[in-house]
Amino acid sequence: MRLPQGFKCSGVHCGLKSYGEFDLGMLVSEHDCSGAAVFTQNQVVAAPVVLGRELMEAEVPLRAVMINSKNANAVTGEQGLKDAREMAALGAEVLELPRGRGVFVMSTGVIGEPLPMHCLRRGIPEAAKLLRHGTGDAFSRSMMTTDTHPKTASARVDGVSVVGFAKGSGMIHPNMATMLATVVTDADLESDVLQPILSRVNEKTFNCISVDGDTSTNDTVLVMANGAAGKVEPDRFEQALMQVLTSLARQIAFDGEGASHQVTVMVEGATSFEEARQVGRTIATSPLVKTAVFGRDANWGRILAAAGRSGVEFEIDKVQLWIQNHQYLKDGAPVKVDPDLASESLSHRGVLIRLHLGQGNGQAEVWTCDLTPDYISVNADYRT
Amino acid sequence: MRLPQGFKCSGVHCGLKSYGEFDLGMLVSEHDCSGAAVFTQNQVVAAPVVLGRELMEAEVPLRAVMINSKNANAVTGEQGLKDAREMAALGAEVLELPRGRGVFVMSTGVIGEPLPMHCLRRGIPEAAKLLRHGTGDAFSRSMMTTDTHPKTASARVDGVSVVGFAKGSGMIHPNMATMLATVVTDADLESDVLQPILSRVNEKTFNCISVDGDTSTNDTVLVMANGAAGKVEPDRFEQALMQVLTSLARQIAFDGEGASHQVTVMVEGATSFEEARQVGRTIATSPLVKTAVFGRDANWGRILAAAGRSGVEFEIDKVQLWIQNHQYLKDGAPVKVDPDLASESLSHRGVLIRLHLGQGNGQAEVWTCDLTPDYISVNADYRT
Repeated sequence: MRLPQGFKCSGVHCGLKSYGEFDLGMLVSEHDCSGAAVFTQNQVVAAPVVLGRELMEAEVPLRAVMINSKNANAVTGEQGLKDAREMAALGAEVLELPRGRGVFVMSTGVIGEPLPMHCLRRGIPEAAKLLRHGTGDAFSRSMMTTDTHPKTASARVDGVSVVGFAKGSGMIHPNMATMLATVVTDADLESDVLQPILSRVNEKTFNCISVDGDTSTNDTVLVMANGAAGKVEPDRFEQALMQVLTSLARQIAFDGEGASHQVTVMVEGATSFEEARQVGRTIATSPLVKTAVFGRDANWGRILAAAGRSGVEFEIDKVQLWIQNHQYLKDGAPVKVDPDLASESLSHRGVLIRLHLGQGNGQAEVWTCDLTPDYISVNADYRT
Repeated sequence: MRLPQGFKCSGVHCGLKSYGEFDLGMLVSEHDCSGAAVFTQNQVVAAPVVLGRELMEAEVPLRAVMINSKNANAVTGEQGLKDAREMAALGAEVLELPRGRGVFVMSTGVIGEPLPMHCLRRGIPEAAKLLRHGTGDAFSRSMMTTDTHPKTASARVDGVSVVGFAKGSGMIHPNMATMLATVVTDADLESDVLQPILSRVNEKTFNCISVDGDTSTNDTVLVMANGAAGKVEPDRFEQALMQVLTSLARQIAFDGEGASHQVTVMVEGATSFEEARQVGRTIATSPLVKTAVFGRDANWGRILAAAGRSGVEFEIDKVQLWIQNHQYLKDGAPVKVDPDLASESLSHRGVLIRLHLGQGNGQAEVWTCDLTPDYISVNADYRT
């Protein structure tokens, strides 16, 4: 995968993580970009989120994004805001950007510790020197925290390219940790076209791996379009963005810490997409469902109980439920399945739970992973 | 602890659990009782809940409650309802109750399996024979599933006695499993006085160990008052009931599977009790907070992030946060605490998280336990 036309990126070790690990990434466009972003809904927001919102409201052309890991610059008060502004200013300076061009900053890592600015003051000029039109591997690694692999995805449509980078929470409930994503494209699209597209696509991708639409102190998704490859139909672009963000969202959900299964919860027959997603989220975030999957137990009672407490109304005798290739509920009545076959069907890494509510045509997919003893040990030891 | 005047109980092994374990309990009043009950809000309700609601609506005098464990009689269709009715009828028959007296039935255990009626047909007459005015130990054991100990509590006020029995979910999120409680009293109180008292007390006790007020397919809390000890001021009775249900609620929360810490989340300075409880619940159900407690990590950032996504508005610079005896946030700014002392303070079994929002006078306590590797193994193996 290559970056879209007119983009360069880099990643360096500036001293935030242990020696040699990439902890600062830079992604730069040669041309002015239109932009769109969605941010955390958390009441407690990190300094970079405050800055990012200001930047999007100011509607200045974007030229670069910088992301550091290991320190979230959250709950760091006035100093944190000053540090985030200095980061952006340093970026603009070393990149020799014309006045009034935006540098977008994101941070992820520990909450409540001051950002070690001496590291960033050293790292930012170094990152600028290493910029290249490559695969983005160093950039995507520099934003990792407990992710087990860098997460990227790309799509081409009508001559334009869409490339996305994301970091997961490295946790099972991404809403409670930091999820960052940056998407760059050489399509020519105005910000006021881009923003509603991003908002729509975000609802069906990143917001399908989150509980209650809630997010962490730092969550941010940014799209930058530099127009180098020319115009594209917005609908066609939206399809490409959907493809890229779906891939990134699934990568994040499936890379949950300690995960041994990748779980897709498909809810059909609801009265709307929103209701289908609400049922799917309740199932996908149930610790009892998640531990059952880990234990290879096709425990349909827990799935049904979760659906029942989701707040969405349905009639039990219209419900059909499948786990993998077996049907467990037919018109609300239990169907006998050989327990050995049921368990064997869950020995695969990929798990599909499919629930049909029989109420309407609304459907949604929600992605998650199972809950394993490794999750506990990683999160008992790792400090976010 | 002794039963209130005019009550007898028993517990037997009828063949639902493995040989010798109590699995059927019976609690009987010599006199007609007024009653009050609260039930699960789940869309999917078990047969005994359907029956229980009918019984409370019919306003017939109650005389007995029977509880079986190992089988929830949920998602069992028409046959399940027939079986629950037969249970109640058998109870009335062997107890030789006059016509029109109510027998309340509760079940807990596996979902979706038919209730083995041959066990109950044998067990109910046996349970009736063993009834005595004792400590209720056999009765409280007969409702246990994965609880590590029977849960009882009692209080006396103005000459009347209030005695409660409960079973926990044996799980960390009790809302997703079955929580049953029965309270008996010799106070003389009409149902229309008893019901609002129970509803109020329930909000501040059992609903403070649950997420979103959601409940399982079977959750039920029943109060039976036989009047044998005479009249009592409703306010005084409410205090006694509060004391009993608070104790039972804490016992359930603290007996979560695999728990190594008992966590009390105290939220103060909210604009109302409801908002305080909402913040407390979000913290108390956060897997990240729970794993941090298990790891003896005073991870205040996770607590603050959970509060921030709870949906309750507050200003960060008015927030104070304590974990055990250490203050971590003062007017929204981090306070340095020696990490060794912080960790040592979490070596105790009891953990107090105290968050002051600085918005008003609303406060609530929410009880939970930590999330440990043992939780996973128990729930991966145990079938609910």
